[in-house]
Amino acid sequence: MPNIYNNILSQLPEEVFSNLLSSGSIRIERILSTGQTSPETGWYDQHEHEWVIVLQGAGELTFANSDVINLKPGDYLNIPAHTHHKVSWTDPMQVTVWLAVFYT
Amino acid sequence: MPNIYNNILSQLPEEVFSNLLSSGSIRIERILSTGQTSPETGWYDQHEHEWVIVLQGAGELTFANSDVINLKPGDYLNIPAHTHHKVSWTDPMQVTVWLAVFYT
Repeated sequence: MPNIYNNILSQLPEEVFSNLLSSGSIRIERILSTGQTSPETGWYDQHEHEWVIVLQGAGELTFANSDVINLKPGDYLNIPAHTHHKVSWTDPMQVTVWLAVFYT
Repeated sequence: MPNIYNNILSQLPEEVFSNLLSSGSIRIERILSTGQTSPETGWYDQHEHEWVIVLQGAGELTFANSDVINLKPGDYLNIPAHTHHKVSWTDPMQVTVWLAVFYT
């Protein structure tokens, strides 16, 4: 049985993206971070919509309109395509597990 | 900030389905159960594919081909459209939180 909490190293040199499902219309990813921010410069500007939930740990998203959103386990939000944003902080003391659903 | 663990009663007279996202191509639902099985008779025969993960609690799915799958927190699986299945058990002692992504 695949489990989203399997194969998590306690320290990660960089963010780890794992594809959990890929179909014509959607893509489901697990993202692991420990202190990383992304992208390193600039903003994400995605052509897909993204619904994302934090399952473990803590993170912060910053949007180009200056909104800052802190996420703890269970918090979720929808990021429409081309909404400029970045991961401005993730907890350096634990692995943050994000579940992201990309769709068009 | 919406949180998937908010507004959970400790006892539920029946399963509770909440729509978290609905778009042209996908639908994301939270499903809560405490001991319920579903559907009451027969099988689910869905025209959409369903990717589902248990976030809290425990459940069991039974498939028409006799496969029985037990799920604990973090376990996930994909159920292709028209795969006959049912929720054959959920933990009666706690609320089980399912996150389901329906897509075509």
